[in-house]
Amino acid sequence: MQNFVFHNTTKILFGRNTVAAIGPETAALGSRALLVYGRKSIKENGVYDEVVSSLQAAGLEVTDHGGVCSNPLLSHVRAGIEKAKKNNIDVIVAAGGGSVIDSAKAISAGTLVDHDVWKFFTGKKSIKKSLPLTTVLTLAAAGSEMNSGMVITNDDTREKFGFGNQRLYPKMSILNPEVTFSVPPDYTAYGAVDAISHVLEFYMTTDDPATPVQDRLMEGLIENAMDSCERCLDNPEDYNARADLMWTATLALNGLTAAGLGRVGFPMHMIEHSLSALYDIPHGAGLSIIMPGWLKWFSATNPARIARLAQRIFPTMDSEGYTDEEVAERAISILRNWFSRIDSPTSLQEIDVPGSDIAKIAENAVALAKIWRLKEYSRERIEEILRHCI
Amino acid sequence: MQNFVFHNTTKILFGRNTVAAIGPETAALGSRALLVYGRKSIKENGVYDEVVSSLQAAGLEVTDHGGVCSNPLLSHVRAGIEKAKKNNIDVIVAAGGGSVIDSAKAISAGTLVDHDVWKFFTGKKSIKKSLPLTTVLTLAAAGSEMNSGMVITNDDTREKFGFGNQRLYPKMSILNPEVTFSVPPDYTAYGAVDAISHVLEFYMTTDDPATPVQDRLMEGLIENAMDSCERCLDNPEDYNARADLMWTATLALNGLTAAGLGRVGFPMHMIEHSLSALYDIPHGAGLSIIMPGWLKWFSATNPARIARLAQRIFPTMDSEGYTDEEVAERAISILRNWFSRIDSPTSLQEIDVPGSDIAKIAENAVALAKIWRLKEYSRERIEEILRHCI
Repeated sequence: MQNFVFHNTTKILFGRNTVAAIGPETAALGSRALLVYGRKSIKENGVYDEVVSSLQAAGLEVTDHGGVCSNPLLSHVRAGIEKAKKNNIDVIVAAGGGSVIDSAKAISAGTLVDHDVWKFFTGKKSIKKSLPLTTVLTLAAAGSEMNSGMVITNDDTREKFGFGNQRLYPKMSILNPEVTFSVPPDYTAYGAVDAISHVLEFYMTTDDPATPVQDRLMEGLIENAMDSCERCLDNPEDYNARADLMWTATLALNGLTAAGLGRVGFPMHMIEHSLSALYDIPHGAGLSIIMPGWLKWFSATNPARIARLAQRIFPTMDSEGYTDEEVAERAISILRNWFSRIDSPTSLQEIDVPGSDIAKIAENAVALAKIWRLKEYSRERIEEILRHCI
Repeated sequence: MQNFVFHNTTKILFGRNTVAAIGPETAALGSRALLVYGRKSIKENGVYDEVVSSLQAAGLEVTDHGGVCSNPLLSHVRAGIEKAKKNNIDVIVAAGGGSVIDSAKAISAGTLVDHDVWKFFTGKKSIKKSLPLTTVLTLAAAGSEMNSGMVITNDDTREKFGFGNQRLYPKMSILNPEVTFSVPPDYTAYGAVDAISHVLEFYMTTDDPATPVQDRLMEGLIENAMDSCERCLDNPEDYNARADLMWTATLALNGLTAAGLGRVGFPMHMIEHSLSALYDIPHGAGLSIIMPGWLKWFSATNPARIARLAQRIFPTMDSEGYTDEEVAERAISILRNWFSRIDSPTSLQEIDVPGSDIAKIAENAVALAKIWRLKEYSRERIEEILRHCI
């Protein structure tokens, strides 16, 4: 096991009837709130009204900043920062999924500096302080509600960049599974795919495979993401299924899985970010295309790691007498078929991206590879991986 | 899944060469430290010197409070509080295992009140504030380094009571597995037993069995506690084995496993506390006596839960065609044999406690059952369980 620091300060309020706590919890941190949210869904399912009422009842002045889209945009973050500065905002409230929370994090850091917020993303400036942030989660997927990371797309340059900073942990996040009853099947599936990918990235890219405690944790999370996703699709109002998926997605990227793994990478996300930046597809849909291709490419060098995972998460799969390569190949195919079964795409073709675009996608991805210090990911290598995704 | 609040604020520094961070980390919290520790082991293995040097180099005034014993005593806590008040201590440093850290927690809360600290344990007063606490862990066992609980024995009344409070989370804990290389085989084993029991208590007593995310986490922790303990005993200086056991023991009782389980009890600890309070045996040794007996008693009402655990953590165990009762019985016997193999006692007889003492032990345990709100544990029931432990 490698040395690590673990310090996750986010308070989680999990369960039924928890949304109304947003007011008192936020009032303990500030008095003028910027409420960041997405589009129509939280107005339709009543969450918006409940959040605003609770904030106002707790004595907060609320400034509205709705309209965050998936693959959230820098221009919208900049507008939020301007609004926050103008209104002397002292606390940020995010009500939404990962895109909304990430936007809120960027606003929380960007409001306290004079320079453009994008400089944080390109590594030209580092975050020294941020406004406190509370959240009401509405989608089980990104894990942003309990971690220190954020991903924003620069709409001018079509770069989708992300990074983490200790000051970006939300102070408090409310996770009410009932809020996700109305998430449609496609986004339920994309959320599960996202959670699986977060675990898989670390599981596969660790430079220290001697971490059985983390392995068991990660294997359990992948199993639970798949299992609970199926139950959510079967019955969207199955409370326990929604709860399992929600808590799985949170634990999948809250720092615990990576603790002790040493250097880990996010190569599948790195490539996917180019896909969703260039074609504006949902992040999860991009990941279910990239994951099997990346694993296929990875199995040429480390089939044993994929085989180990397969033996743990697909216990009925018979691996006796087969080589690691054979087990890995079958495991990748089981995973790809599962993505298809939950209606998440598994090829570029399915999202109408021709093979001739591979060079363009790779070029975009290489820029992020540099920033994320994935230097071993040359344009050639990314193209090779993408050819497994056609 | 039941509603829960999770808010664990402890910062963990894990790995090699981390002990020297105690000075700077503590200096950020105060300037006059009370250093709480045990007996000779930390002076022999160099940890004491390293901690004191680091604290002094960081500019802290250090007041010594050594001599904590296992099953730590209220009298020693009271002496620490007196010393802390007299020296205007503003930060507590614990260097040791669970007993030391628990004592330090009690001192951190007791120093800031005028009444006797025992009133917190009997529920007559509640903790509103505490001095900040940093720790250097020297034993993988109790989990106190990353939780809000503490257990102290009242040497006047022979009551061993414990409870938790959000203000008792250490601010920062240093976990260096190398520090545990010198832990002898018996205490290595007792530590693993303790970690296993922490997981098992919640796994068995949850009133909501529909928590697959937590189940997987707990099953993985039990497996890793057993596996890493064996590796530590085979080679006490196996870094990864020590690291796995240390991180497992921390995760076994840091709030994660219980999140969503609803009401859980600590009945095995409740009974064990009487054993170690009355006979001053190591806590882990008491637990390996109580656990199989408690499980045997529990299997009469809920064999399915034990069978499920067995199928997950003993995958080579053939359960096909057997009833849950049969699987549970074999699982309990595997666990009991494993305790014997690591030289932890599995019967009252082995620690020279006659069956005629059962009434006395049960009487002591009933007092704690009331405080811990385990009202279903009557004296008769405790005696019945203890008869399975003879």
